[in-house]
Amino acid sequence: MDSLTLIGMVSVVTAGLTISIGCIGPALAEGRAVAQALMAIAQQPDEAATLTRTLFVGLAMIESTAIYCFVVSMILIFANPFWDHVAATGG
Amino acid sequence: MDSLTLIGMVSVVTAGLTISIGCIGPALAEGRAVAQALMAIAQQPDEAATLTRTLFVGLAMIESTAIYCFVVSMILIFANPFWDHVAATGG
Amino acid sequence: MDSLTLIGMVSVVTAGLTISIGCIGPALAEGRAVAQALMAIAQQPDEAATLTRTLFVGLAMIESTAIYCFVVSMILIFANPFWDHVAATGG
Amino acid sequence: MDSLTLIGMVSVVTAGLTISIGCIGPALAEGRAVAQALMAIAQQPDEAATLTRTLFVGLAMIESTAIYCFVVSMILIFANPFWDHVAATGG
Amino acid sequence: MDSLTLIGMVSVVTAGLTISIGCIGPALAEGRAVAQALMAIAQQPDEAATLTRTLFVGLAMIESTAIYCFVVSMILIFANPFWDHVAATGG
Amino acid sequence: MDSLTLIGMVSVVTAGLTISIGCIGPALAEGRAVAQALMAIAQQPDEAATLTRTLFVGLAMIESTAIYCFVVSMILIFANPFWDHVAATGG
Amino acid sequence: MDSLTLIGMVSVVTAGLTISIGCIGPALAEGRAVAQALMAIAQQPDEAATLTRTLFVGLAMIESTAIYCFVVSMILIFANPFWDHVAATGG
Amino acid sequence: MDSLTLIGMVSVVTAGLTISIGCIGPALAEGRAVAQALMAIAQQPDEAATLTRTLFVGLAMIESTAIYCFVVSMILIFANPFWDHVAATGG
Amino acid sequence: MDSLTLIGMVSVVTAGLTISIGCIGPALAEGRAVAQALMAIAQQPDEAATLTRTLFVGLAMIESTAIYCFVVSMILIFANPFWDHVAATGG
Amino acid sequence: MDSLTLIGMVSVVTAGLTISIGCIGPALAEGRAVAQALMAIAQQPDEAATLTRTLFVGLAMIESTAIYCFVVSMILIFANPFWDHVAATGG
Amino acid sequence: MDSLTLIGMVSVVTAGLTISIGCIGPALAEGRAVAQALMAIAQQPDEAATLTRTLFVGLAMIESTAIYCFVVSMILIFANPFWDHVAATGG
Amino acid sequence: MDSLTLIGMVSVVTAGLTISIGCIGPALAEGRAVAQALMAIAQQPDEAATLTRTLFVGLAMIESTAIYCFVVSMILIFANPFWDHVAATGG
Amino acid sequence: MDSLTLIGMVSVVTAGLTISIGCIGPALAEGRAVAQALMAIAQQPDEAATLTRTLFVGLAMIESTAIYCFVVSMILIFANPFWDHVAATGG
Amino acid sequence: MDSLTLIGMVSVVTAGLTISIGCIGPALAEGRAVAQALMAIAQQPDEAATLTRTLFVGLAMIESTAIYCFVVSMILIFANPFWDHVAATGG
Repeated sequence: MDSLTLIGMVSVVTAGLTISIGCIGPALAEGRAVAQALMAIAQQPDEAATLTRTLFVGLAMIESTAIYCFVVSMILIFANPFWDHVAATGG
Repeated sequence: MDSLTLIGMVSVVTAGLTISIGCIGPALAEGRAVAQALMAIAQQPDEAATLTRTLFVGLAMIESTAIYCFVVSMILIFANPFWDHVAATGG
Repeated sequence: MDSLTLIGMVSVVTAGLTISIGCIGPALAEGRAVAQALMAIAQQPDEAATLTRTLFVGLAMIESTAIYCFVVSMILIFANPFWDHVAATGG
Repeated sequence: MDSLTLIGMVSVVTAGLTISIGCIGPALAEGRAVAQALMAIAQQPDEAATLTRTLFVGLAMIESTAIYCFVVSMILIFANPFWDHVAATGG
Repeated sequence: MDSLTLIGMVSVVTAGLTISIGCIGPALAEGRAVAQALMAIAQQPDEAATLTRTLFVGLAMIESTAIYCFVVSMILIFANPFWDHVAATGG
Repeated sequence: MDSLTLIGMVSVVTAGLTISIGCIGPALAEGRAVAQALMAIAQQPDEAATLTRTLFVGLAMIESTAIYCFVVSMILIFANPFWDHVAATGG
Repeated sequence: MDSLTLIGMVSVVTAGLTISIGCIGPALAEGRAVAQALMAIAQQPDEAATLTRTLFVGLAMIESTAIYCFVVSMILIFANPFWDHVAATGG
Repeated sequence: MDSLTLIGMVSVVTAGLTISIGCIGPALAEGRAVAQALMAIAQQPDEAATLTRTLFVGLAMIESTAIYCFVVSMILIFANPFWDHVAATGG
Repeated sequence: MDSLTLIGMVSVVTAGLTISIGCIGPALAEGRAVAQALMAIAQQPDEAATLTRTLFVGLAMIESTAIYCFVVSMILIFANPFWDHVAATGG
Repeated sequence: MDSLTLIGMVSVVTAGLTISIGCIGPALAEGRAVAQALMAIAQQPDEAATLTRTLFVGLAMIESTAIYCFVVSMILIFANPFWDHVAATGG
Repeated sequence: MDSLTLIGMVSVVTAGLTISIGCIGPALAEGRAVAQALMAIAQQPDEAATLTRTLFVGLAMIESTAIYCFVVSMILIFANPFWDHVAATGG
Repeated sequence: MDSLTLIGMVSVVTAGLTISIGCIGPALAEGRAVAQALMAIAQQPDEAATLTRTLFVGLAMIESTAIYCFVVSMILIFANPFWDHVAATGG
Repeated sequence: MDSLTLIGMVSVVTAGLTISIGCIGPALAEGRAVAQALMAIAQQPDEAATLTRTLFVGLAMIESTAIYCFVVSMILIFANPFWDHVAATGG
Repeated sequence: MDSLTLIGMVSVVTAGLTISIGCIGPALAEGRAVAQALMAIAQQPDEAATLTRTLFVGLAMIESTAIYCFVVSMILIFANPFWDHVAATGG
């Protein structure tokens, strides 16, 4: 039963840290992009359409790195191959 | 009973750290975006509608990373598959 | 009795750290937003109503991340499912 | 007697750290908001009433995060459910 | 005698750290507010009365967070409920 | 069974840390590039096409470093040669 | 004799750290306030009296946080209730 | 079997950390270079060709440091001489 | 002899750290105040007397925090009540 | 076999850390140099040849420090004298 | 002999750390003051005498904090009361 | 054989850390110098010869500190007197 | 022989750390002073003599803190009173 | 043989860390001085001789702190008095 417990504990900790550490960068980066976009729209209201489109493409790129972390976190909780293997072999 | 305790302890710690670390980035990012939005509205009051709309879309994107952390934190407390498995097998 | 003590200790520590770490980001972000709002009102006194409204929406969004942390902290102290389970099973 | 001591020690440490770490953010944020408010009043003395009112609302929001920490700290010292439970069951 | 010693040691350390860490934020924040107030008075000598009043309200708010830490520190040294309980039960 | 557990634990932790730490840099860098692109488009709306193209090439370069981390993370979870070797030899 | 030694050691360390860490913030804050005061006097020599008075009130507020730390440090060295209790009960 | 496990564990951890730490610098550096390139093109649209060429040479140089890390990471996973030697000698 | 040695060791370490950590803040703060004073004198040579006087009062305030640390450090080396007590009771 | 394993483990870890830590500085430095070069070309398009030549010499100098790290990393993996000696003496 | 060795070791380490950590602050502060003095002399060559005198008083104040550290360091090496006591009592 | 292994392990780790930590400073410094040189050439194209010569002397000085680290790193790997002594005496 | 070895080890480590940590501050401070001196000479070539003289006095003051560290480092290596005492008493 | 090994290990580690940590400060400081010198020459080409001479004196002062570290590092490797003493007494 020990192996199962150890793998479980480690998966819980890693899943939590992965998403929490992995969100710092994207959140700050999106904050910066949004802030600059508002600045740019205030300077060039006529280009609001172009600016908004570029902003959304950029946000999608940045969000993708947060999603990588979320995916790894979910895999570790719900589809952990190490846990499955150890549980299958009777732990 | 040991396995259950260990998984429980680790889940408690991770749930707390996930949400507390995971909130630093989004909070700072939203603060920056809101601050810049106020600046932009002060510079271009006529574009207040466009700026506010862009701000809200941006805040939603940023909030999403905080919500990822909250979701993982809640899963670890109330729907923890490792805890359920160990509790089901008599711990 | 050991399991109960361990879960209790860990819950106490985590509850405290969650709210204290989780308050740093929102507090600084709100400080930034309020500071910039005052600046903006000083530049555009005529837009005080719009600026104040945007500020309050933004503060609500930022406060929400602090409240996530407070909720998790309260759950860990007063509605901790791990503690309840262990206490129910006679520890 | 051990469980009681351990829970007690951990509660003392956590209560102190919660309030001391939890005060850094709000204090700095309030300092920033007050500083900018003074700047804004110096630039727009005619708007002193509006600025002061906005400042006070903002300070109240920021102070609230410090108060969350103070509340958790007080609960841990004077109304700690884990301590009460362990003390009630004879420790 | 052990429990008493442990609780005592931990209380000493926590009392010291609480007040020393808890003073960094308020001190820096007050320094910033005072510095900006001097700047503002130099720019608008006619508003010295309003500025000084706003400064004092702000300093009081900031000082309050330092006082929370001082209160917790004093409670831990002179009115520590955990110490009292353990000392009362013969340690 | 021990070797298998150890390799498994270490792979879980490393996979999570690799992607979470490895996302901080790219996310911040993309945020900066997008922010500057919006600034540049606001200054030179006529060059929007050139700027957008350069931005996308740059984002691709930056994203590539995040993808290196994601690839290593996936290899460690789903195609770990050390795990396979140990599992194949009966662990 | 052990309890006495432990409490003593911990009190020595805490007393030193409390005052040394607790002086960083106030010192830097006073430096900032003094520096800005000199700047302000150079800009508005006619307001030197008002500026100096505001500076001294501000310095007193900031110094108060350093004095909290000094008081706690002195209490821990010369009026430590935990030490007195343990020494009185024969340690 | 022990040696094999130890070398394996260490290789897994190192491979992950190498690429994740090694990507922070290049990612940030590329973000800065791309951001400045966009700025420069906005200032001198006529030199877009020269600027883009210089940017690509620079990005290649910076990417090279990320690739050094990726190469070392891959060597450690798929062509680790220490692992091969220990596995060959029956480990 | 053990108690004496432990208290001695801890006092040596604490005395050194107290003065070395406690000097960082005041030194930097005095450097800032002196630097700004030179700037201010260069801008307003006619106010040199007022500026110098304010500078010296400020330096005295800042130096006081360094002196708190020096006093505690000297007390710990030459008038340590814990050491005296333990040495008096035969250690 | 122990010595061999220990030297092997340590070489793996060191090789990875050397190149990953050693790439942070050069990458950031090259990013700064490239960014400034683009700025300079935009200001003085006529000096593009001189600027590009100076940039390449500078990049070569900076890259050299990254190459020192890569060389040491490769030596530790493929030409490690300590490993060779221990392996030769039967380890 | 043990007590003597322990006190000796601790004194060596503390003496070194005290002076090395304690020199960082004063050195940086003096660098700042000297740099600003050169700036001020360049702006107001006619006030060179006043500026130099103020600079020297300031440097003396800052140097005093470094000298506190040097004094404590020398006391710990050459006039350590704890070492003398333990050596005198035969260690 | 133990002594040999320990000295070997420590030399491997130190050699790697020495060059990797020792490259951060020089790399950043060279990046700054090159960046400023490009700026200076763009401002004063007529002085390109003088600037380039000064830059190369400066880069040589800075590179020298990186070379000190490389020399120590090489000595530790290929001409380690401690390893030679221990290996010569039969280890 | 043990005491001698321990004191020796600790002296080696402390001597190295003292000079390496103790050089960071003075080096940076001298760099700042020299940089500002060059700036000042470029602004006021006529005051080069005064500026150079002030610079050299300042550099001497700053270098003095580095020399304190070097002196302590040399004392610890070549005139260590603790080592001499322990070696004299037969270790 | 143990004492010899311990002193050797510690000397290796310290020698490496001394030079690598000790190079960070001087390298950055020289980079700053060189950068500012290039700036100054670009502003005042007529003073190139004076500026270059001042730069070289400054670089020599800064390099001296790096050389202190290199000297200590070399002493620890090739003229280590502790190692010589222990080796002479048969270790």
